[in-house]
Amino acid sequence: MAEQNAPIRVGLLGAGTVGSQTARLLVEQKDELAQRIGRPIELSGIACLDPEEVDFPWIDRSLLTSDTMSVVKNADIVVELIGGTGVARTFVLEAMNNGASVVTANKALLAKYGPELYKTAEDNNVDIYFEAAVGGAIPIVRPLRESLVGDQVKDMLGIVNGTTNYILDEMTTKGLDFDVALKEAQAKGYAEADPTGDIEGYDAANKAAIMATLGFHTNVGIDDVTVEGITHITADDIAAATAEGKVVKLLAVVGKDEHGVSARVYPALIRNEHPLASVRGSFNAVFVRAEYADDLMFYGRGAGGAPTASAVVGDIVTVARHIAAGCTGPAIRMYNDYPIAPLSTSKAAFAVRFLIHDNPGVLAKISTIFAKNGVSINGVNQDLKPTLKDPGYDGEIQQLRLVTHMTDEMTLRATVAEVCELDCVTGDPSIIRVLD
Amino acid sequence: MAEQNAPIRVGLLGAGTVGSQTARLLVEQKDELAQRIGRPIELSGIACLDPEEVDFPWIDRSLLTSDTMSVVKNADIVVELIGGTGVARTFVLEAMNNGASVVTANKALLAKYGPELYKTAEDNNVDIYFEAAVGGAIPIVRPLRESLVGDQVKDMLGIVNGTTNYILDEMTTKGLDFDVALKEAQAKGYAEADPTGDIEGYDAANKAAIMATLGFHTNVGIDDVTVEGITHITADDIAAATAEGKVVKLLAVVGKDEHGVSARVYPALIRNEHPLASVRGSFNAVFVRAEYADDLMFYGRGAGGAPTASAVVGDIVTVARHIAAGCTGPAIRMYNDYPIAPLSTSKAAFAVRFLIHDNPGVLAKISTIFAKNGVSINGVNQDLKPTLKDPGYDGEIQQLRLVTHMTDEMTLRATVAEVCELDCVTGDPSIIRVLD
Repeated sequence: MAEQNAPIRVGLLGAGTVGSQTARLLVEQKDELAQRIGRPIELSGIACLDPEEVDFPWIDRSLLTSDTMSVVKNADIVVELIGGTGVARTFVLEAMNNGASVVTANKALLAKYGPELYKTAEDNNVDIYFEAAVGGAIPIVRPLRESLVGDQVKDMLGIVNGTTNYILDEMTTKGLDFDVALKEAQAKGYAEADPTGDIEGYDAANKAAIMATLGFHTNVGIDDVTVEGITHITADDIAAATAEGKVVKLLAVVGKDEHGVSARVYPALIRNEHPLASVRGSFNAVFVRAEYADDLMFYGRGAGGAPTASAVVGDIVTVARHIAAGCTGPAIRMYNDYPIAPLSTSKAAFAVRFLIHDNPGVLAKISTIFAKNGVSINGVNQDLKPTLKDPGYDGEIQQLRLVTHMTDEMTLRATVAEVCELDCVTGDPSIIRVLD
Repeated sequence: MAEQNAPIRVGLLGAGTVGSQTARLLVEQKDELAQRIGRPIELSGIACLDPEEVDFPWIDRSLLTSDTMSVVKNADIVVELIGGTGVARTFVLEAMNNGASVVTANKALLAKYGPELYKTAEDNNVDIYFEAAVGGAIPIVRPLRESLVGDQVKDMLGIVNGTTNYILDEMTTKGLDFDVALKEAQAKGYAEADPTGDIEGYDAANKAAIMATLGFHTNVGIDDVTVEGITHITADDIAAATAEGKVVKLLAVVGKDEHGVSARVYPALIRNEHPLASVRGSFNAVFVRAEYADDLMFYGRGAGGAPTASAVVGDIVTVARHIAAGCTGPAIRMYNDYPIAPLSTSKAAFAVRFLIHDNPGVLAKISTIFAKNGVSINGVNQDLKPTLKDPGYDGEIQQLRLVTHMTDEMTLRATVAEVCELDCVTGDPSIIRVLD
């Protein structure tokens, strides 16, 4: 441990969007942060691939280096903003084994190697903090680690990916189809050139794994998360949702029941009155239901350099206070060993949309198959006209939309598959969960 | 300090709605809490006025006593749920001077004696935690103390009183006048027999003082808060708001500008799209704008036994972890010494409603007075018919509603007073702030 008044050294790994804003906050708020910590902090090094390329007025160029390990070894707090699950893991482990605490925004790293990282922190008596890994600037990790620690979380629903939320919003307000909305989001910089991680739900899945681990004190890794993205959502699905007073949102949903814990990512229909329905554009929100606290929601910017840096610096200050006080924050212990609930136990209400040829008796045939499989129907709508066409069919294509009662997911999917074998049913069906 | 594995003793002061639920959580979740803390905790005593009257199945009656000081002196953590600023202060100070940490939900105590309490905690190297004092179950105190500690809060808007939010909601959805809605709320148990503290804004004012102190790291006490309640809000005001796509909410607003910090409680018009507009009934929410994090909102149950107990037990666990680790959480230091911004520097947009006799030239007279005083008008509406009558006047009473641009509050109030001296103006005017 350094002497009492020596500055606490912060080493930054990464000088991109978040890294540069983190450096800015640390430099510009230096005096106030020292007041808040009770001891000064100083940027001791910034590792980046090409120091020549980094040019921000608030960054002292002599701190820049491509020798990442030297930054790791000369810091009391290592801030990992490299991303990915490769070298980031090496550096984070090295930092902790070297006696440094770690602050990271790396959701993929935590979702894959969480147990190893949390244990390494505890073994070395150092902190690992990661508020920015879920929901960007929104304090959600800390409430789960600390505020709700006297309660029992029942489930959580999160809008934790701004790109997909923006795309779904544009589809809703402008009536766009998915492909068009995606291109528009890419043009505006809201979606990456390769948008797979966002639109297929993998980014949200990492966050779901972290949420479930923290909420239920059990290990849930990325491979335990079932993932469904938004690429199959059509303008027709959105129009039908709007007509029913609902919106489609991509959700990270974690829960616990008698079968175990579950962490799932899927698009779902939410009624307009639900607090999550009004979370627009690139904002994120996490809705928590707890035994005693009841409903809670945390809302804010899910991404972006400055908002993410706010969360990162909040963690740095917390860890620095611990260092100044000679202690650490609560270790992340996964003292429960819950099984992962198998998909076969998943139950939900579903909105199913079939494209059908306009023949007499179609509804009877389809509803008979549903009845035979024991899937109970809550509502039927055949009014909405689809935009899709069937090139091989001369008559009018109609859209049949069924909303089920709570039902077994496997049975529902088997039922839908059986319906699709009917000659009068064409195209791909749409299956979207309906939130109660 | 007790030995390593000895249970951490928790003494409860108060066995009412919150106290009994806190006891329940501590008893029912005992094993899990021990896991989360890393050391067992035990209820060491429960002080109440009349132990004979307390009867909950989960409370061991041998713990009950009317000797509050004995509970204070035999605990590692004293949980103050007595309320008020009298004996509560004595017991809290005694606890800390005796080496115990304190958890409290007492907003009035903190708003009045905050600096003394925070300093006593720091001097004795113990914790004082009070998540439940603002926003009930909502984690807002901790985000301000820890998550946003690397950022600069610009301002905060809170719906922090469930009673008034419920009354305003009922007025909006049912078109009720204030008095009727209040009686209904009292009948349903949402308002107390003496509702003054809620409807006049004093409860919210205590919370505003705490929010400003934590947000700006400066001392803001209850006497620094300007307070306006909702008793003057009429069904006509609400109807006019609805017609404009707005709702009326009682807000605790804290901010900082070149004149100093301000903490104010007042009803305000908010457009329906604002995240705070959809906070209904007895729910609370705090909307925070920060330099880096941008907009954040925290939403949840603002009152009630179980939700408040969730926040209290969250604090107990945090403090117990600190005791187990031999450290304390961050001290609350008011290292800034900002002045309180004088009311004369307050600026806002206002909606002003006059009741006028239907004479030619009234609008000209009124707008001339506004112009003379330099108050610029943004919108005029004379369409809405008032429900109020003037017994001394035979003609039709009309309602004239003016919305101003951002203006000086003192000038606006002087202007309205001058208008009210006109013969053609009757009844009391209504002045409500409009949020930008």
